[in-house]
Amino acid sequence: MRILVVGAAGTIGKEIVRELGGNHSIIRAGRNGADVSVDITSEDSIREMYKKIGKVDAVVNASGGANFTAVSELTPELNEKGIESKLKGQINLVLLGMEYVNDGGSFTLTTGVMMDDPIPLGASAAMANGGVKAFVKASSIEMPRGIRINSVSPNIVQESWEKLGKFFAGFDPVPAGRVARAFVKSVDGMQTGNNYEVY
Amino acid sequence: MRILVVGAAGTIGKEIVRELGGNHSIIRAGRNGADVSVDITSEDSIREMYKKIGKVDAVVNASGGANFTAVSELTPELNEKGIESKLKGQINLVLLGMEYVNDGGSFTLTTGVMMDDPIPLGASAAMANGGVKAFVKASSIEMPRGIRINSVSPNIVQESWEKLGKFFAGFDPVPAGRVARAFVKSVDGMQTGNNYEVY
Ligand SMILES: NC(=O)c1ccc[n+]([C@@H]2O[C@H](COP(=O)([O-])OP(=O)(O)OC[C@H]3O[C@@H](n4cnc5c(N)ncnc54)[C@H](OP(=O)(O)O)[C@@H]3O)[C@@H](O)[C@H]2O)c1
Ligand SMILES: NC(=O)c1ccc[n+]([C@@H]2O[C@H](COP(=O)([O-])OP(=O)(O)OC[C@H]3O[C@@H](n4cnc5c(N)ncnc54)[C@H](OP(=O)(O)O)[C@@H]3O)[C@@H](O)[C@H]2O)c1
Repeated sequence: MRILVVGAAGTIGKEIVRELGGNHSIIRAGRNGADVSVDITSEDSIREMYKKIGKVDAVVNASGGANFTAVSELTPELNEKGIESKLKGQINLVLLGMEYVNDGGSFTLTTGVMMDDPIPLGASAAMANGGVKAFVKASSIEMPRGIRINSVSPNIVQESWEKLGKFFAGFDPVPAGRVARAFVKSVDGMQTGNNYEVY
Repeated sequence: MRILVVGAAGTIGKEIVRELGGNHSIIRAGRNGADVSVDITSEDSIREMYKKIGKVDAVVNASGGANFTAVSELTPELNEKGIESKLKGQINLVLLGMEYVNDGGSFTLTTGVMMDDPIPLGASAAMANGGVKAFVKASSIEMPRGIRINSVSPNIVQESWEKLGKFFAGFDPVPAGRVARAFVKSVDGMQTGNNYEVY
């Protein structure tokens, strides 16, 4: 298959590329993508990327962020990053990419454990994760041409523990490679509308 | 208690006002609100409303919409209504209203059954519902001054069946009064972080 991986150079993206790269041809994307550049917060940038790369069999996204802020300090402005990046960025990859995905292809997006097991400062990210999960489940029933759509919900990963562990008291981090296996399940498997929890 | 009900004139809002009005003092809001007007898609309008009404013990929202569109016809532009109204409109009622809610008060937002039991054309609304549900759960753990936050997820209601039933094949509609009872549970009860499913 020909697979677009957005966020290919990231902690989780690298492992996805490693896992899928053995059997598939990978197009690595990111703001400084090795094969093509894209900023998922810009509709125009997403449109240009798809125009450049043409048809693919799968779109995988492992990028997108949100501000970590206490809810009593969260403003509409600070909440906007989660809206524009992790939520709309991912959904626009689907809406604008639909015509570029071959029959029977797939989309796989990223959510995260904070929506199920809340942590301090995590409300904005959880909002984005919950929106993506529900969009995936609801849109899966009417995707055209046999196209499937899933998301993967990573626990905090071991490789990010040093940087992010302080936000995840008591969590049991998982290897990024194990998260990447769930992306393989979505791309090479047959399920649709699922949010694979790697907890 | 002094309770702000946004969407007070709506199908569900009317029943909420009826249920809560017996024991509490209600401020009815909406774009053409009987007591105060507000458009939840505008931050300035939300700010002005809170300035006008001052302190309250509970904020209840039963307004907010999204476009009903097939996912293959959904554009970023059409998705924007769900983002601006049902998702950000509700979350901004919380973020901008926090300082106006008395100690031990509460917020109650509205989600909906489509995120759990998907229907055609429902992806954008489901996205908004899922975002609100996750925000409620995640923000509840760090709300200041004992303030609680919940959401109510209505099934399609009997009073809307004639207009909306065609989208909800095989659903078993519930009376709007039963949905309103869940709002009473949230306001007069003690739970927080819950999404009351009235299915
Ligand atoms: N790490 C964890 O423990 C963890 C846990 C749960 C969920 N997640 C989620 O998993 C996803 C990936 O996390 P990660 O830790 O692997 O992130 P990461 O190491 O920061 O990598 C993110 C990658 O995405 C690219 N990127 C960032 N913003 C972008 C944008 N606006 N448009 C296009 N590409 C962009 C970056 O490359 P450029 O700089 O070149 O753009 C980078 O390669 C995120 O959604 C994160 O929330 C991570
Ligand atoms: N009806 C159902 O079967 C059902 C099922 C599941 C979920 N829901 C959800 O429950 C909520 C209420 O539904 P409903 O059927 O009661 O709606 P409705 O009858 O259309 O009433 C909505 C009310 O909200 C007000 N409103 C609309 N847009 C607003 C805005 N931007 N800012 C402030 N107020 C606004 C309207 O008054 P003005 O015109 O004066 O603004 C109206 O009174 C919605 O979020 C809906 O998605 C409904």
